[in-house]
Amino acid sequence: MNNEQKMLLTKERERLADFKDRGLKLDMSRGKPCKEQLDLSMGLMDVLTSKSNLNVNNMDYRNYGILAGVPEIKAIFCELIDVTDDEIIVAGNSSLNLMYDTLQRGMQFGVAGGVPFHKQEKIKWLCPVPGYDRHFGVTEVMGVEMLNVPMTSEGPDIAVIQELIKDPAVKGMWCVPKYSNPQGLVYSEKVVKALAALKPAAPDFRIYWDNAYMVHAVTEEGDTLTDILAEAKKAGNPDIVYMFGSTSKITFAGSGIAFVASSKKNIDDIKSKMTYQTIGPDKLSQYAHALFFKDAEGVYELMKKHQKILTPKFATVMNILAEELTGIANWQEPRGGYFVSVDLPKGTAKRTVELAKDAGVIFTPAGATFPYKKDPNDSNLRIAPSLPPIAELETAMRVFCCAAKIAYLETL
Amino acid sequence: MNNEQKMLLTKERERLADFKDRGLKLDMSRGKPCKEQLDLSMGLMDVLTSKSNLNVNNMDYRNYGILAGVPEIKAIFCELIDVTDDEIIVAGNSSLNLMYDTLQRGMQFGVAGGVPFHKQEKIKWLCPVPGYDRHFGVTEVMGVEMLNVPMTSEGPDIAVIQELIKDPAVKGMWCVPKYSNPQGLVYSEKVVKALAALKPAAPDFRIYWDNAYMVHAVTEEGDTLTDILAEAKKAGNPDIVYMFGSTSKITFAGSGIAFVASSKKNIDDIKSKMTYQTIGPDKLSQYAHALFFKDAEGVYELMKKHQKILTPKFATVMNILAEELTGIANWQEPRGGYFVSVDLPKGTAKRTVELAKDAGVIFTPAGATFPYKKDPNDSNLRIAPSLPPIAELETAMRVFCCAAKIAYLETL
Repeated sequence: MNNEQKMLLTKERERLADFKDRGLKLDMSRGKPCKEQLDLSMGLMDVLTSKSNLNVNNMDYRNYGILAGVPEIKAIFCELIDVTDDEIIVAGNSSLNLMYDTLQRGMQFGVAGGVPFHKQEKIKWLCPVPGYDRHFGVTEVMGVEMLNVPMTSEGPDIAVIQELIKDPAVKGMWCVPKYSNPQGLVYSEKVVKALAALKPAAPDFRIYWDNAYMVHAVTEEGDTLTDILAEAKKAGNPDIVYMFGSTSKITFAGSGIAFVASSKKNIDDIKSKMTYQTIGPDKLSQYAHALFFKDAEGVYELMKKHQKILTPKFATVMNILAEELTGIANWQEPRGGYFVSVDLPKGTAKRTVELAKDAGVIFTPAGATFPYKKDPNDSNLRIAPSLPPIAELETAMRVFCCAAKIAYLETL
Repeated sequence: MNNEQKMLLTKERERLADFKDRGLKLDMSRGKPCKEQLDLSMGLMDVLTSKSNLNVNNMDYRNYGILAGVPEIKAIFCELIDVTDDEIIVAGNSSLNLMYDTLQRGMQFGVAGGVPFHKQEKIKWLCPVPGYDRHFGVTEVMGVEMLNVPMTSEGPDIAVIQELIKDPAVKGMWCVPKYSNPQGLVYSEKVVKALAALKPAAPDFRIYWDNAYMVHAVTEEGDTLTDILAEAKKAGNPDIVYMFGSTSKITFAGSGIAFVASSKKNIDDIKSKMTYQTIGPDKLSQYAHALFFKDAEGVYELMKKHQKILTPKFATVMNILAEELTGIANWQEPRGGYFVSVDLPKGTAKRTVELAKDAGVIFTPAGATFPYKKDPNDSNLRIAPSLPPIAELETAMRVFCCAAKIAYLETL
């Protein structure tokens, strides 16, 4: 460490001590919508009242029935993702639950007539990294071996994937294709087409296409994700993808509506087991959502309002990173989604989180963006700008940058 | 067949032909609440509006979080079934889903540290018969071997159970202890205490106590079910029971709130896996239910109103059975729940359903009340009186009795 660096370290340590003195208590760890975003959907609470007619399509929506979801909400999702009524199941409040259950059915019953995974010697899964910690949690708890696939600026590295899927033990892959978690990038047309055309050794290989942020741009112009279900059909690979999504970050996180879409064959396969698990979803919540949105256009209009709230928060993160960490860390400007991914100097991510925590600001633990929570470089951190008000976000980001600089300087 | 019987057969066949001419289209197959019952809970649609404060206990209920359910609804269930906050998980809209998932976790992960069922050679399950078809569906789809346990007027035959649980492959048992499906009887104190004190060979044996009808009396005086969770603790067997229940037949079928209750150890075991499956339940639906009920007393008051609607329907079934099938069939008067169980002369149940269907009235298929849909005597049928208006119910029951008499006379 040269003198200049020593002085900088001293300065940044004093600065962190000042933050500490302020008794901060900020939590930047999860991608939660903020109060103003949640307020956008309060109209959802008024669309159904005790005067509502809930006998729709000759079916009392208050009673049992309709395994795959009410037609009104299905129609809206079908338009948003361009599938037909028999290619989608609209379910409860959690797409994570749908993903977990889908993989679980693969474990227990096999995929579309295949051998149950738990009867196969070893099951492996492709995990683009950095990625979403809850995805990795699902495969980890099921005992599935996770293989890292590096991300490029266009999406996961196809050459690596093509090599790995020669192993018939590789049964699936996690993807967040639009505004990826955590980088906020969009898979390119080339990458989507290559994924749709994969020829895995395992016939029961499936891409888990978590379209969590399908309408969640933070730029005015937005982005178009190539339609993998259509491309898979064109490539003679109609069954290779399960697409998941929800309104958790459209209406209310935790009280939204989730769906899974795929080929009719895959959807029929899911229904054939789901019918033992439940009589049907909460149709009143589904119907209320449909009335609230009115149509797909209603979803887009709502998302424009989310965008107005989120865009300045992302800009705040970008500006402070640029001001404080240029030349030290690397990051991309997210085009949507809920996160900013920052690559700090090797070996400093854990220390950065620790220092920030010590100053009262919680960040997602280092390693969380990798399978088994193991970032081989101890470098990647995920920032979630959505929840705090801008003033708090600024403070939290200052603490983050200060901590990152100290952690870096300590390694010199 | 004597002459009198021949004449009766001719007469009943003419009567059935008359029913057929009426072009009936009645469905008596499922235990669905009727419109008037569903109307009782329309107030549920008004308790939350866009003006509601959904920031409760310093937690925004519109956002992510709270895996085990919101405190307000937990408190009401805790009072209803006398458990503590850490002995219950309040979840989504389906107790069937909770039962399926609980058994599934046993299959995949094992029960509370035990060997996963799918790694054990053979898993068996005790099934009191007649019983609930969807229970049997869950064990069947999971490949669990089901063993019939005869029901007595006090509950399942304890001597048979005590013998069967000497086999360490026996891992569980289905029970609908209060207003049993389909007989509507209440397990006696003696039976509940004996079940709570079972000493199965398998340490991972669990009783699946489906308390679906815990507050669903059709008599003015009601019934008290002995508290199996308390008895199990007293017997030094605290982990032997999972209790399930829901408000599906309290508020809205399909849009209610379900729970699982057990020892803290069992609940912690469930939570340790559930945390990978979902971030949490639909808290707004849970909170709305809590506001609507106000407290446990609110649930009891609501159920009195259900009772007023259901009691005359059960009386209708009883009266017509007594008038038409005395000396031919056997049945019990249900004290609550949703069904009437009728034992027809051996070998006539299938034929009865077929004849009724031919006359435009659908009953639950013969065999449905037995594992693998196999009633060894082809005798038991389940009648669901709740859904149709009384006039339709009368017609349906006349068709039922007419069909049953024909089916019986045909065997002579």
